Amino acid sequence: MQSDNPTAAILLIGDEILSGRTRDLNAHHLAGILNGIGIDLREIRVVADDHPAIVAALRALDQALGGAWDMVFTSGGIGPTHDDITADAVADAYGTVLEINADARRMMEERWTRLGMEITEARLRMARIPVGATLIENAESAAPGFSIGGAHVMAGVPSVFRSMVEALVPRLNPGRPPVSETIRVDRPESDVADGLREVAGRFADLSLGSYPFRDEAGFGTNLVIRGLDPDRVAQAAAALRDRLAL
Amino acid sequence: MQSDNPTAAILLIGDEILSGRTRDLNAHHLAGILNGIGIDLREIRVVADDHPAIVAALRALDQALGGAWDMVFTSGGIGPTHDDITADAVADAYGTVLEINADARRMMEERWTRLGMEITEARLRMARIPVGATLIENAESAAPGFSIGGAHVMAGVPSVFRSMVEALVPRLNPGRPPVSETIRVDRPESDVADGLREVAGRFADLSLGSYPFRDEAGFGTNLVIRGLDPDRVAQAAAALRDRLAL
Repeated sequence: MQSDNPTAAILLIGDEILSGRTRDLNAHHLAGILNGIGIDLREIRVVADDHPAIVAALRALDQALGGAWDMVFTSGGIGPTHDDITADAVADAYGTVLEINADARRMMEERWTRLGMEITEARLRMARIPVGATLIENAESAAPGFSIGGAHVMAGVPSVFRSMVEALVPRLNPGRPPVSETIRVDRPESDVADGLREVAGRFADLSLGSYPFRDEAGFGTNLVIRGLDPDRVAQAAAALRDRLAL
Repeated sequence: MQSDNPTAAILLIGDEILSGRTRDLNAHHLAGILNGIGIDLREIRVVADDHPAIVAALRALDQALGGAWDMVFTSGGIGPTHDDITADAVADAYGTVLEINADARRMMEERWTRLGMEITEARLRMARIPVGATLIENAESAAPGFSIGGAHVMAGVPSVFRSMVEALVPRLNPGRPPVSETIRVDRPESDVADGLREVAGRFADLSLGSYPFRDEAGFGTNLVIRGLDPDRVAQAAAALRDRLAL
């Protein structure tokens, strides 16, 4: 699909995903949102709770560090425990240091006071923010995420991640959202491959994808046409229906 | 966690995951299986249906190509349509070419004959296998995956992926499976951080992770101790219960 839309990557940080213990929910959630605002998600990575691995991934993914994409959204590793090392790694990657951030501290203390919770050193650890970063609000549990360079650093707990995404999205530079049309065919992919290839060749500005599935009735295929121009997408869908005699 | 276990990466190939259209099921499924046979999954990547992106990811991930890990498992892009470009990219990455593989053709023709399906050019496309590769059987729909270098190339459709994983696993060089113990605490992560850090310091050969969750009762934490020696894991669990007065 031809597009000048901004590009992005998602970086999930967490041993628990790699060990198979936890199934990630956050990448799929954010992928749908980015698609809806015309930000072109080009890559997802999952790395361990490992300082060098996080730094290397940020360098590979964020254009601000010489990496590939306009922005990178991280999830995980910003909690209060010893294995929460994302903020330290991010500070290193962007050549800055962590400091207790006064605004972050205030947000968290307001919540703790309201809930009658003590202010402990472990809790304050979550107010350590890279110098130069902008906070991302967390309506769910107060401890904020932050943005620095092209990176937006958010929590791993799905409800908290969603809350941060909601706060962040209005601040992102959006693109032109793609439109898509899906044609469901109750035939195996190999039955429609020739027609699909031919029509795809005539609509090189669009993306024509073919997604096989299996349900109780056997193998079927979803044909998905994506592009920025609704008229072109409709033309391609009509051409495809015509070619496949649907 | 200290370990000499073999290391691995998973590479998912597919625009449909990046656009948020499809939620991946395969990485989580394989992660659990690898953990159970002592293969240490260190990274997951998702890239687009894009030739250079697939080649670059294989080079970064497979030690046989100068990459980081002992093996890499791919999912997606080996079907019969124009957007199925994984086999071409894999052949390029490993410096070989695609040819109709006689065994793959036979497996597929047996199935098609049984089902009364025609042998078409599109279907035969799935018998194009890199020269030098070993086939991975597919009990679900016949068209096989394949292994070359440190890469094991499998389908994206979950039922087919699972069938290929089942055929492949007995051929993998396993490691020593980690044991783990989970302690559920109905307190926020920040309440247990100090105790966890202290005990983690005494058991540097183990991995002590802390996984916050939120349910109807509020925030809680799963403490997970992982290691290769069951006695050490049990000692760490006892120490943690003691330190946190559980």
